[in-house]
Amino acid sequence: MNKLILAALALPSLAFAAQPAPTGSQLPIDEQAERLRDAALSDDLAWTILEGLTTEVGPRQAGTEAEARARSWAVRRLTELGFSNVRIEPFEMPVWVRGEERAEIVSPFPQPLVVTALGNSGATPQRGVEAEVIGFDSEAASEESVRGKIVFIDHGMAPTQDGSGYGQFGAPRRQGPSIASRKGAAAIVIRSIGTDYHRNPHTGVQMWAEGVRPIPAGALTVPDAEQLRRILARGRPVRMRLTLTPRNTGRHESGNVVAEVPGSDPSAGVITIGGHLDSWDLGTGALDNAAGVAITTAAAHRIMQAGRPRRTIRVVLFGAEEVGGGGGDTHFALHRENGNVVLVGESDFGADRIWRVDFNLAPENEALADRVAALLAPLGIVRGRDRANAGADLGAWPTSGTAAIDLNQDGTRYFDYHHTPDDTLDKVDPTQLRQNVAAWTAMLAVVANAPEAIGPVPAAP
Amino acid sequence: MNKLILAALALPSLAFAAQPAPTGSQLPIDEQAERLRDAALSDDLAWTILEGLTTEVGPRQAGTEAEARARSWAVRRLTELGFSNVRIEPFEMPVWVRGEERAEIVSPFPQPLVVTALGNSGATPQRGVEAEVIGFDSEAASEESVRGKIVFIDHGMAPTQDGSGYGQFGAPRRQGPSIASRKGAAAIVIRSIGTDYHRNPHTGVQMWAEGVRPIPAGALTVPDAEQLRRILARGRPVRMRLTLTPRNTGRHESGNVVAEVPGSDPSAGVITIGGHLDSWDLGTGALDNAAGVAITTAAAHRIMQAGRPRRTIRVVLFGAEEVGGGGGDTHFALHRENGNVVLVGESDFGADRIWRVDFNLAPENEALADRVAALLAPLGIVRGRDRANAGADLGAWPTSGTAAIDLNQDGTRYFDYHHTPDDTLDKVDPTQLRQNVAAWTAMLAVVANAPEAIGPVPAAP
Repeated sequence: MNKLILAALALPSLAFAAQPAPTGSQLPIDEQAERLRDAALSDDLAWTILEGLTTEVGPRQAGTEAEARARSWAVRRLTELGFSNVRIEPFEMPVWVRGEERAEIVSPFPQPLVVTALGNSGATPQRGVEAEVIGFDSEAASEESVRGKIVFIDHGMAPTQDGSGYGQFGAPRRQGPSIASRKGAAAIVIRSIGTDYHRNPHTGVQMWAEGVRPIPAGALTVPDAEQLRRILARGRPVRMRLTLTPRNTGRHESGNVVAEVPGSDPSAGVITIGGHLDSWDLGTGALDNAAGVAITTAAAHRIMQAGRPRRTIRVVLFGAEEVGGGGGDTHFALHRENGNVVLVGESDFGADRIWRVDFNLAPENEALADRVAALLAPLGIVRGRDRANAGADLGAWPTSGTAAIDLNQDGTRYFDYHHTPDDTLDKVDPTQLRQNVAAWTAMLAVVANAPEAIGPVPAAP
Repeated sequence: MNKLILAALALPSLAFAAQPAPTGSQLPIDEQAERLRDAALSDDLAWTILEGLTTEVGPRQAGTEAEARARSWAVRRLTELGFSNVRIEPFEMPVWVRGEERAEIVSPFPQPLVVTALGNSGATPQRGVEAEVIGFDSEAASEESVRGKIVFIDHGMAPTQDGSGYGQFGAPRRQGPSIASRKGAAAIVIRSIGTDYHRNPHTGVQMWAEGVRPIPAGALTVPDAEQLRRILARGRPVRMRLTLTPRNTGRHESGNVVAEVPGSDPSAGVITIGGHLDSWDLGTGALDNAAGVAITTAAAHRIMQAGRPRRTIRVVLFGAEEVGGGGGDTHFALHRENGNVVLVGESDFGADRIWRVDFNLAPENEALADRVAALLAPLGIVRGRDRANAGADLGAWPTSGTAAIDLNQDGTRYFDYHHTPDDTLDKVDPTQLRQNVAAWTAMLAVVANAPEAIGPVPAAP
């Protein structure tokens, strides 16, 4: 990747020769966007923001005092950087916090296992719950086999560049606890929805299905899940003691931090971009998602520094993404009617290089897609054929007909760290981070200044 | 590595052509040793032992009930395998066990850090100790600057193939706590003596210097140490709350498990090999040192299966290596006088491939070294120039004049896992493990059957 960028910088004409021919009419490359893109390859602002947020705030779970500190930090930082209309959009939410977390095999081979509670897990008594472990591989498992047991689901996820395994292999986390509870299980432990072999468990939210009684629900690390599988394979009854003592602390305030680069033409609409400010509590949320905050803020800042764009760029740092997206919902409710938002884009998949761009634009904006794709090609970014969906916090917009562009990051190692204690600053590669800023800057330079109207998109088929 | 072995197997004559010319007289390769070596590249016994010990016993800290279970497991397993004179050499030792472990920055940026206690750490009160953190980079730091503070040492260790960084960079763990206590520190936290970037701290033993009051002594993970460094770099006073509540539980029994392959010629002496059975409590001690147990046992078993060797091979699975080597001392004291041990070798550096062989043989046994080196060359093993020292459990023997051979493993990734929760079975590469068994089998086949006497060695210069 670095070699590719260096080559692109040294030989722009050669690099550009390799870009795909625009499918619309032949348009000149926007020279300013090109210059801004290349300058962004030396960006230091994104790193500074990422380092600052993860160091000076650290973990920032939604609805906690730490997330409130993150909002104060962001307001101060965005104001210092010269953004306009910096403000907080507050909202209330129920808060669940982690307690003690322990698991141990009691018999036949006594030993501790490493576990963490899944979001909204029920609690065990302080002394834990002890029960037989039953491997669970099918929704069809009988209630008789499950009742009173600790259910264990062991589905493994392999890395994919586009992160597509997460939807499928995340099911044990999202649906497993409710299914186990319905069948009368005492508790459930799953193999972490992760691709690494370190003893840092992957947490993540799960929502109890309507009417289901919360039971203790935890994730073992991958090495611990494999250990439990080996122990079960001996064929003797396996007893586990599980202690998870999370609690619900009631409703507390969260909020989105919003900042703008005002446009010169209010009638041309608003471009909304962003990431999320909250993180899980286990790590410092460097990849998930201080990186998205840093990348989108740094790119918008570069557009601002280059002079007033035609369209307003609104940067939204969402609250409470990890626990169900309260920030995205609040923002959509506030702005959908009179916001005049014409295009959205979200960065929430780490800090590794952008490898693919996907569009969701009206047919009459095909030339806009061509110009963006042409500007991204020298960064090694391919043009994809998926329909852009903008992600968890801004996904409601394209679903409702707003145009979207997805700058897709390489997710090959994302699920090694996602939702674990290991999501820390050292996992961020500064060079790949800069490539992200360059891609976002190039994209914004085109869409914020495009002379044509950016139209609504047809509903997804 | 695998390619090399495959090439060696497919083209033995070509591979042998590459071996270094013996420095002594030209000797024929021991054909039986060659056959045993190549058969051992398909070994499954070492993996079975390693998988069994780490799964059915798991962590096995010295002097605890878990280490006792490991001894029972080993006695049963060695007996089943047909070894002779399987027995336990018991001894007593003081036992220290871990308690609660927490660290948090109280100000200016409140957040948790991941810490573990070093062996023999003193304890904080249950509520922890809160104090200012002071970076500590020199023994010359004044008592005034240290008194009442939490001292932080941040020396980083880089990976080396031969593991040589551990001696130098382990000093903060071994000497730091005593120095900090002498200067009046409230506690000490060090950057883990490790080479990985995961939030699994590295424990390890440290001994309080004579007359020094034990203070709480912990290791932060590398990402946490770098986080603390960034926080300190902001220049504001940093306060930490540290909770470590280990305790000394008194004297308990440990022991070595000993098994033999009886030789046909008692006058020819005994070859003693082995690894250690105890592990740190955080992981399952797969690399440190179920691997050494498995490799040496599997190699001795191959020699046994091939027929009675000339010399007795004694396999010793030591107790209490991690906490100071009580097992090695006990064994040496029991056998030094009348044991007739002529050569020793130890496996205690993980399960990655053996890359170098070092000797400590009498000058008249130079031809023996040549034969061993020639048999190891097709496994990609180079002949080193260091004086073999046999390691922690058997090191007293070469120091006292017994010959030794070191089959040195590649340590490049060893300190990513060493003494952490991450030392688990999944870190073992079965192919590299087999190369270890092949090398040990070849070496044993030569030294156990050598027709010449194996003489004592001169004292180290």
